[in-house]
Amino acid sequence: MAKNITSPETDFARWYQDVIREAELADSAPVRGCMVIRPYGYAIWELMQRDLDGRFKATGHTNAYFPLFIPQSFIQKEAQHVEGFSPELAVVTHAGGKQLEEPLVVRPTSETIINHMFSKWIGSYRDLPMLLNQWANVVRWELRPRAFLRTTEFLWQEGHTAHATEQEAREETMRMLGVYSDFMREMAAVPVIPGVKTEKERFAGAVDTYTIEAMMGNGWALQGGTSHYLGTNFARVFETTFLDRDNQRQFVHQSSWGVSTRLVGALIMAHGDANGLRLPPRLAPVQVVIIPIGMQDPRASQVMEASEAMAKELLSMGVRASVDSRDNMSPGFKFNHWEVRGVPLRIEIGPRDLDAGHATLAQRNRKEKFTLPLAELTGKIPALLNGIHDQMLKEATDFREGRTFDVDTFDEFKRLIPEKPGFYRVWWDGSREDENRIQEETSATVRCIPLEQPGGEGECFMTGRKTSTRAILARAY
Amino acid sequence: MAKNITSPETDFARWYQDVIREAELADSAPVRGCMVIRPYGYAIWELMQRDLDGRFKATGHTNAYFPLFIPQSFIQKEAQHVEGFSPELAVVTHAGGKQLEEPLVVRPTSETIINHMFSKWIGSYRDLPMLLNQWANVVRWELRPRAFLRTTEFLWQEGHTAHATEQEAREETMRMLGVYSDFMREMAAVPVIPGVKTEKERFAGAVDTYTIEAMMGNGWALQGGTSHYLGTNFARVFETTFLDRDNQRQFVHQSSWGVSTRLVGALIMAHGDANGLRLPPRLAPVQVVIIPIGMQDPRASQVMEASEAMAKELLSMGVRASVDSRDNMSPGFKFNHWEVRGVPLRIEIGPRDLDAGHATLAQRNRKEKFTLPLAELTGKIPALLNGIHDQMLKEATDFREGRTFDVDTFDEFKRLIPEKPGFYRVWWDGSREDENRIQEETSATVRCIPLEQPGGEGECFMTGRKTSTRAILARAY
Repeated sequence: MAKNITSPETDFARWYQDVIREAELADSAPVRGCMVIRPYGYAIWELMQRDLDGRFKATGHTNAYFPLFIPQSFIQKEAQHVEGFSPELAVVTHAGGKQLEEPLVVRPTSETIINHMFSKWIGSYRDLPMLLNQWANVVRWELRPRAFLRTTEFLWQEGHTAHATEQEAREETMRMLGVYSDFMREMAAVPVIPGVKTEKERFAGAVDTYTIEAMMGNGWALQGGTSHYLGTNFARVFETTFLDRDNQRQFVHQSSWGVSTRLVGALIMAHGDANGLRLPPRLAPVQVVIIPIGMQDPRASQVMEASEAMAKELLSMGVRASVDSRDNMSPGFKFNHWEVRGVPLRIEIGPRDLDAGHATLAQRNRKEKFTLPLAELTGKIPALLNGIHDQMLKEATDFREGRTFDVDTFDEFKRLIPEKPGFYRVWWDGSREDENRIQEETSATVRCIPLEQPGGEGECFMTGRKTSTRAILARAY
Repeated sequence: MAKNITSPETDFARWYQDVIREAELADSAPVRGCMVIRPYGYAIWELMQRDLDGRFKATGHTNAYFPLFIPQSFIQKEAQHVEGFSPELAVVTHAGGKQLEEPLVVRPTSETIINHMFSKWIGSYRDLPMLLNQWANVVRWELRPRAFLRTTEFLWQEGHTAHATEQEAREETMRMLGVYSDFMREMAAVPVIPGVKTEKERFAGAVDTYTIEAMMGNGWALQGGTSHYLGTNFARVFETTFLDRDNQRQFVHQSSWGVSTRLVGALIMAHGDANGLRLPPRLAPVQVVIIPIGMQDPRASQVMEASEAMAKELLSMGVRASVDSRDNMSPGFKFNHWEVRGVPLRIEIGPRDLDAGHATLAQRNRKEKFTLPLAELTGKIPALLNGIHDQMLKEATDFREGRTFDVDTFDEFKRLIPEKPGFYRVWWDGSREDENRIQEETSATVRCIPLEQPGGEGECFMTGRKTSTRAILARAY
């Protein structure tokens, strides 16, 4: 167990804070609810951004940038939207030394201001679909902040699209949910359950909200990203219309979708262990760290040369490799330093290894060390990293399966969830009132109605009504 | 002359606005002083970011992220800083439905909050140098906004570093000024004059402010980026100290440096012409556009195939190529479309070209068209693009040389600058009062004292005092 890190079994919330501090991912800021993302944490976010941005562009989207400030009147135009966001808004009332005539809201999300612009830019069906994305900061006043998971300011991307038909907008909504699912599996090594939110958990202003739900190391759920079918809700209030092929004026159908820096929190909690962070290789700022051993040995310079040569070759292969050549620290200190930071693969190399013509390797996700001949070592690294990714994805999937339970009654659910936090599958035909009751009595919520349904019928675990719908409940971040 | 674009000779300011609108670079926002960066404009900024980010990382910097909101008391700690920025601040007074106890300033720049964090992170000389950069939005309330050049909110990067000695911090300040100069020359094809600002134009809180000054198409100057040696000014008020090798507590010496989306404005004004934008190839979102001719011809599909094959090969070579395959527009319309958008190279290909085994090429920066055999065409594109870059850099350099004048007296300067806007080189030993007078009587300012000085001595053009300092004066954005 790492120094300064609480055991996750003892206190998962404290463990999470300890890992963030010891791995130097983030720090609290002098403004309540805000955080500072430190270089190591930001490097993870940059890798996420780069990959997601490629996926957005490959699906036809381009980036743009809309203003941070939104006139208060804009937010108030869509009834559900204002109701949902009003309690969380930060408001600029003074600027340039004067009181403003109309207060400005610091964007909590950009549907309103983007629709204002869309209504200027969209004239006819030839302008559609309009497929934009924005990388930006947003602000939602947070009373119970948690680093990465819930902060007053956070970084995210928000996609905003406009289409000629409901079908196209719905296809887009699902396409981007798929992009998020793929990203989580292929990059973050986190399996997710794509599903639709209940009305209670829906985005303020959406017709339907889709989500990907991931399980964290304590059995709680984390909403990794959302994709909304907005219908014509915003189009109606902002008059975002187009002339169709028959020269008829129509409202556009829209989607919006986003993921945020909370995904860094998801990585920590899905993969971390008692020794700190464990990073999936494709999102690890350092994928391979090389630790030269025997820095006091007469052959130290030979060892350093071999280490540097290895790093250079790995870098040329596109592997993010680094040599820890600090001379005032012991190997043991360095092992711990990189273990806490979750580097997937460590290579140890000393004078005797040079003699033997091999090096020792340690995977962050496995206990056993192993050796590889120096001659073939670098060539094997990409496959090793891919293997680590697959192992981590399987571990996370197995963990989730082991923590997923089927229950038939609310009593059973209430009894089980405190002792066995996890995903609970139930037959579901409840109302918003039923959901409120679940939350009050168990702190759990309906996470989603999975897109993949088992078929068949059963009795709703709350109402007893016949239903063909299965839902997943869990405690959630 | 392009439709809807005012001649730059007639009205440069209107020409600038027209180009931004017609090339779809940006749009005005519903909040005064703010702008929306449209996809084509944002794509240019993305290319700038990608290149600069690589240069920052190659010089040892890592990215981090600091909060948007800064406690008002922080801004007030450094006397010059608060004096400089107070009139431009936007202030959040209400959030989460309540009035805040301490108002929050929306960051105009981040020296204060970053020093607050540095003072937590820096303990000893081993923690130095600390070399951070942040990509972010900042807000400075703007009474006379101009798209890209002066907007209330803008995007930028701000580097912030802490060092053990003045010498190291000064070296860093100059290193980053060099990075900016290289970027402007190698990527933007804009020559710049690096120099130091006078006290009057210095960043609020800096010991010395260095700048790169570029000449725009109307002879005005544009400050492309600044790099500040901050001394211990912020360290003293935020108590950013370290224990040196002798265990003595010392203040860190600091630098900060930034460039912003105003560089997009610089590109427009340094290279644009009567037909719209002209983009330097390395910052052009589309470097080569291929226009199939004769879409009504029986062999249209053959032409399309050849066009697509050409684009595919160029893309595989790393060239940003695109086929304009829209079937409801004439070639002439498309030529104009891409000309206004400044695409450096256009390839026209029709049925007769296929017969002849060649294609026609047009460079955005030259009048003459020329043909190249299809067999060797794609292979020649990279060299052609590099050639266009060199030509554009030379054109801009020649233009600047032709608009740079030496004057000996203020009277001469006053007489010349209205009729011949440009860079004026003068002997300089003036005071802040002299600078105020220059600005009042001519609207020009001292842009910088170039790092490269000619040597020798002369009489200050204002005071008549002997001096060895030459300065550059101009009207500026």
